[in-house]
Amino acid sequence: MRERLLAAERVKALEWREGVLRVLDQRQLPGREVWLALDSVAAVAEAIRNEAVRGATAIGIAAAYGLVLGLRARLASCGDWRAALEEDVHLLRQARPLAIQLGWALDCLCGRLRRLTPDEDPLRALEAEADALLASDREANLAIAQLGLELLHQHDEGARAVLTHGNAGALASGGFGGALGVIRAGWLGELVEQVYVTESRPGREGSRLTAWELQGDGVPTSVCVDAAAGHLMKSERIGWLIIGAERIAANGDVAAPIGTYPLTVLAMHHGLRVMVAAASTCIDAELEHGDDLPLETRAASEVLDLETGVGVLNPSWDVTPADLIDVIVTERGVIERPDAAKLAELLCRKRLH
Amino acid sequence: MRERLLAAERVKALEWREGVLRVLDQRQLPGREVWLALDSVAAVAEAIRNEAVRGATAIGIAAAYGLVLGLRARLASCGDWRAALEEDVHLLRQARPLAIQLGWALDCLCGRLRRLTPDEDPLRALEAEADALLASDREANLAIAQLGLELLHQHDEGARAVLTHGNAGALASGGFGGALGVIRAGWLGELVEQVYVTESRPGREGSRLTAWELQGDGVPTSVCVDAAAGHLMKSERIGWLIIGAERIAANGDVAAPIGTYPLTVLAMHHGLRVMVAAASTCIDAELEHGDDLPLETRAASEVLDLETGVGVLNPSWDVTPADLIDVIVTERGVIERPDAAKLAELLCRKRLH
Repeated sequence: MRERLLAAERVKALEWREGVLRVLDQRQLPGREVWLALDSVAAVAEAIRNEAVRGATAIGIAAAYGLVLGLRARLASCGDWRAALEEDVHLLRQARPLAIQLGWALDCLCGRLRRLTPDEDPLRALEAEADALLASDREANLAIAQLGLELLHQHDEGARAVLTHGNAGALASGGFGGALGVIRAGWLGELVEQVYVTESRPGREGSRLTAWELQGDGVPTSVCVDAAAGHLMKSERIGWLIIGAERIAANGDVAAPIGTYPLTVLAMHHGLRVMVAAASTCIDAELEHGDDLPLETRAASEVLDLETGVGVLNPSWDVTPADLIDVIVTERGVIERPDAAKLAELLCRKRLH
Repeated sequence: MRERLLAAERVKALEWREGVLRVLDQRQLPGREVWLALDSVAAVAEAIRNEAVRGATAIGIAAAYGLVLGLRARLASCGDWRAALEEDVHLLRQARPLAIQLGWALDCLCGRLRRLTPDEDPLRALEAEADALLASDREANLAIAQLGLELLHQHDEGARAVLTHGNAGALASGGFGGALGVIRAGWLGELVEQVYVTESRPGREGSRLTAWELQGDGVPTSVCVDAAAGHLMKSERIGWLIIGAERIAANGDVAAPIGTYPLTVLAMHHGLRVMVAAASTCIDAELEHGDDLPLETRAASEVLDLETGVGVLNPSWDVTPADLIDVIVTERGVIERPDAAKLAELLCRKRLH
């Protein structure tokens, strides 16, 4: 399956080429495929802020290359580059303060700089570290896809339609995506025959991005509004709800794009299995419960076309309690019926690949 | 409460004035308040088809006046007006074939014509019948509002926020609306302090129409995307989900705008009470189960901005099984824990007002 997945790869969220970070502008998809060339830390921070690049891991990798660009500029000017680079780290961190993988990527790069030996070129070392993060996320996606595929196989009872929400795809990662990696493997392995994708208001990541990714791969895909998911679960034979995660708390609660939580309640009501597929880097061991996570809200203008004075509640994500999740799939392994002890044990494991 | 509701009346979906049906063009709300003057049966049928006028009862009343306009034209031309009028009835019926109250209103008017005595003026008789339907729906809304208010009072435990979906308001009826009639009465009676309104994709009846109605009445109103309802039920103290119905089956199943069914599942999960407030004319005694109702789908272009070749499932409504509904409130009375026997008994009752 590894080879088949690699052969089928088609979509990339970003690439690092000749000292420039190129990101596919996701705001313009699916209408236009526009690549932005980012050559400064400020440009990368802005692309994260304005969501030209989005998705948990993709943001982290973009930030890593952003710091490489920052270091290059700091080295070119005189003075103490280490102190100056702190400003770049801060700028990138503030671009999306609640994205755990952004912090994780920056921590990796800062750690590398602290370990720098006197004979190493700091720019080369940092660039190699960012490359390693990208390669590692690609491998993580491949591992997740294969573990997820095994689960689809184990529980295959002929209901080979799956439902997904938001975009946990190639566009959100350095590789094939978490949830969409599993779905792609399922399609190649003939365990997924039909994918239902929710629109995923307010950003429409489902109808704009996920549908575009899957359709390009030739996967039979149908989009519905978020409100239609209940009708769909009742009227179609759907085996799995497969989703990604923004962050996973130490007890297995999952923060994910708004609308994930109600889908898991509906999945329980209709007997669908719920799989969360995400890199282990989005597990936050410091976060005891999902509900401790501060709420991130988005602009009211995403909900109302017109300023009418009506109040708007527009949360970015919701929290699904661990007991509504059948299985969490990470590159380090699979956790069925997640809880704090199983998550702690997983975090002690080495990566599988 | 009757007087207070009448004093607070502000929004009308339609009015019949000097032989012309004026309808508020709901496609342009909340941006612009444009009244369309319809003076032919074809114009009324078109306004129903293109959803300038929408909502179960409002469609029925519009069709009734449409038939009055048809009769006026048929009488003005020579020939057999009774036979010719059949074409108008057909035209109106086809404008929204699944809207039960459209059929009900036309049946009322056709029945009136059959009972015509030789000394009666057919046009006057039909106009009086249409006026009576409008007046009767207004009274039905008032009765529903008061019965609903009693329920809010009985179950008042201090959680005075309610959630509604779609638009079952003045815009959908001849009066104050079913669900919004109850909510208005609750607000005037200090049993509703906050209303959460779902966007209600794909037509956005919630964020466009319901929010506009409630805000105009000074009711504290917050809009959220449909996908955020789960988060809201978990994080806010909401006592009731109050909704309307497109049609109620003989067993108490409720067909209502898409997204209603998942909200009732979520309501059960979170301990909210579910009230369906609708005129008894939307009870379809011929329809044994809600799932026997043919599915109505809407245009794919409402879900995808762009023709990308991705499949779209865009159902107009879903069906909520009776056992997820705590109470159905009609102008003939209240049915707690609805079932076929209780609905049959209700249909035998006279109207309360």
